[in-house]
Amino acid sequence: MNKLEDIVSLCKRRGFIFPGSDIYGGMAGTWDYGPLGVSLKRNIMNEWWNYFVENRDEVYGIDAAILMNPRTWEASGHTATFADPLVECKECKSRFRADKIADGISEAVTTEEFLATHTKCPVCGKENWGPIRKFNMMFTTHVGAVLPDDEAEIANKNIAYLRPETAQGIFVNYKNVLDTFYPNLPFGLAQQGKAFRNEISPRDFILRDRECSQMEIEYFVKPDTWEENFEEMRKLQRDFLENHMGLNSDNLHEYEVPEKDRAHYSRRTVDFMFDYPNGEEELMGLAYRTDFDLVNIQRESGKSMEYRDKNTGEVFIPHIIEPSIGVERLFLAVISTAYIEDEINGEKRTVLKLSENLAPYKFCVSPLLKNKPELVAKAKEVYQLLRAKYGNVTWDDSGNIGKRYRKQDEIGTPKCVVIDFDTLENDTVTIRDRDTTDQIRVSIKEL
Amino acid sequence: MNKLEDIVSLCKRRGFIFPGSDIYGGMAGTWDYGPLGVSLKRNIMNEWWNYFVENRDEVYGIDAAILMNPRTWEASGHTATFADPLVECKECKSRFRADKIADGISEAVTTEEFLATHTKCPVCGKENWGPIRKFNMMFTTHVGAVLPDDEAEIANKNIAYLRPETAQGIFVNYKNVLDTFYPNLPFGLAQQGKAFRNEISPRDFILRDRECSQMEIEYFVKPDTWEENFEEMRKLQRDFLENHMGLNSDNLHEYEVPEKDRAHYSRRTVDFMFDYPNGEEELMGLAYRTDFDLVNIQRESGKSMEYRDKNTGEVFIPHIIEPSIGVERLFLAVISTAYIEDEINGEKRTVLKLSENLAPYKFCVSPLLKNKPELVAKAKEVYQLLRAKYGNVTWDDSGNIGKRYRKQDEIGTPKCVVIDFDTLENDTVTIRDRDTTDQIRVSIKEL
Repeated sequence: MNKLEDIVSLCKRRGFIFPGSDIYGGMAGTWDYGPLGVSLKRNIMNEWWNYFVENRDEVYGIDAAILMNPRTWEASGHTATFADPLVECKECKSRFRADKIADGISEAVTTEEFLATHTKCPVCGKENWGPIRKFNMMFTTHVGAVLPDDEAEIANKNIAYLRPETAQGIFVNYKNVLDTFYPNLPFGLAQQGKAFRNEISPRDFILRDRECSQMEIEYFVKPDTWEENFEEMRKLQRDFLENHMGLNSDNLHEYEVPEKDRAHYSRRTVDFMFDYPNGEEELMGLAYRTDFDLVNIQRESGKSMEYRDKNTGEVFIPHIIEPSIGVERLFLAVISTAYIEDEINGEKRTVLKLSENLAPYKFCVSPLLKNKPELVAKAKEVYQLLRAKYGNVTWDDSGNIGKRYRKQDEIGTPKCVVIDFDTLENDTVTIRDRDTTDQIRVSIKEL
Repeated sequence: MNKLEDIVSLCKRRGFIFPGSDIYGGMAGTWDYGPLGVSLKRNIMNEWWNYFVENRDEVYGIDAAILMNPRTWEASGHTATFADPLVECKECKSRFRADKIADGISEAVTTEEFLATHTKCPVCGKENWGPIRKFNMMFTTHVGAVLPDDEAEIANKNIAYLRPETAQGIFVNYKNVLDTFYPNLPFGLAQQGKAFRNEISPRDFILRDRECSQMEIEYFVKPDTWEENFEEMRKLQRDFLENHMGLNSDNLHEYEVPEKDRAHYSRRTVDFMFDYPNGEEELMGLAYRTDFDLVNIQRESGKSMEYRDKNTGEVFIPHIIEPSIGVERLFLAVISTAYIEDEINGEKRTVLKLSENLAPYKFCVSPLLKNKPELVAKAKEVYQLLRAKYGNVTWDDSGNIGKRYRKQDEIGTPKCVVIDFDTLENDTVTIRDRDTTDQIRVSIKEL
């Protein structure tokens, strides 16, 4: 595996990802996607949407608002429990997530347990800690006409949160879809969208950021078929990750989460772990959530979440299987897999071996020399032809041909098409392959 | 033009748009998109992206974070001036936007001017008003480990806003793109993404919501060519709206905003107004923003925003032309245009005449009778064939054929393909056209 710094550097140098609000000194935990990053991110998200929504009869799309009625987060338990243990150094006032600076303690650490670890402050080196406090990771805001000088009471009435997950946006629409589409079980509701988590210490590039994009499916099943539905969903996830995202099965590990580590609502969870440059981390989770969510929502909302089987007339609350993946985590897994440093004829190069369906550009077209108008004109013709046929195609006439190849290698363009003097004679072009660097000569018609 | 209520009702009944967080009593100013709404919204957004980004060599995509460094909003003027005039009834404590409840006053209304209008409270009917106060429409939150019991001082240091426009996410990346892609002028940076405005009184369905999706281009030009660049952009917008979104030129009015009504940074603004069901409203804006933004950013950030012309060596700050459109406003314009109530052979029907590129489903395939296994099997075959070829295709075997047609008309499916007993004999099917209701018989091969 390559170093994270090298990937971060490539991402910035080539216009994939820039630090958020960089010209103003940044905004910790946010990242801005440049032209190539947008392209790769869109390709990843569209592939997922095609695979899990458009190609599946039983999966429906949803796009819910980020600002939701706060009762959503009461029912889900987020208001009460979506919190990290925060600890403050009394000397330098720095604040940390207790379980990240001390070894061998969990998120449920008590003040006594933390003090017993004799952790020193990572900033000032002293050991003088305040008590562990619960820090809720939901971002808070106020909706409606609340002014800064309003009393706290009014302000509290108008509190809202930036959703910390997209799942609840699906659950609140389950009944709407039942009433308009009358789907048979099993059926899925899928959503792509932003979620926000106020991480105490965002880190590891886009792996733990404060603003992420999630892709989630809530898959509603009959209680007695959950095991086979779970198994089918597990296989689909793996197929998608390996055959559509180009991830290597050697770097992908399924981890059967033991009961004591599972979320309280889950009766089975399989985490898909990935070997990131900085070590193994969760890429996605697949959870059997039972009827936990719908039962809670039924209680909190007073609306029936029951499903009536059209054939048997049986009435029950469906169970849920949830595959959930973060776009940024997947983006980093894809780009880490593709990032290769190799040597071609004694010359070192960096290459992004992105699969064709994900590469920002499918082809690069360029004239051998940029100061020969007849070459440029012919190359423009080929460029327009390929673009009409394949969509994303780029043009490059900067520097010499070797420099152009190295640039296209770095941004993952699978093929470079070069127009030279022979082209003018016999309508053939050179195609140079990114991975092998082999060059072949083909006629323009065959492109 | 049709009534807004009818469109809202269709949107809910057929699964296009539901009120946000409806099962919990809602969340004013938010809307959730159901399966068909997601599909239409995605089609609109992807068409825009293809038209303005992928098909244009000189336009690059950007996807910036929603949470930005707060200095962004100092430089842009939003912290100081992005405010509505708020007035409170002293009797019943209701709050209103002053310029929306009194006639003939502007957003810059003073307390004296408002009192002189002798407006009565729309809720309690009394006339006892407090002073006009400025209500900033940016949603405020806190980033980082800030606890509810922290002193105000610490809290203020960590303030952040939900971006009220996507434009600033582009401006802060202008320099990043210059340094990685070396584009020639004119070039554009395009972004699609969420923006948030804490409207005092959200209203008119999705027209004035608190959470919207914007599609914006910041088009960087030489100061002395702005007029021709503006004109070209104006034509592109009109072509896109009429020929790709299916809007009718009769409902689309270009309004040359006079100097006194323009934003302070704009030297020319053309608003594209649309005849919505509730009256004419702004659909999109096209503004010549001069060098206002880059000059402000240069001052606030201390970083040079200058551009160096590769041919002439000239150094200057580019000027900007900005076409800006809200996805929800466009969605409503598209669906209002498509929504028709007509009469076919004496029978009333509602039909969404969406263009083929926007319709959620291109075809509906169904067997004439659902209890004939041989018809169902053949229809499934045709369904798979069309889906492999065209993507979004739906299946319908509910009710009788007339009911199916009426449903497909309401959701805008251009063609219904019906498999009957003749199909089994001669491999032909009936294709029924949504707009004319004409039926023709074609062989499956020709589909």
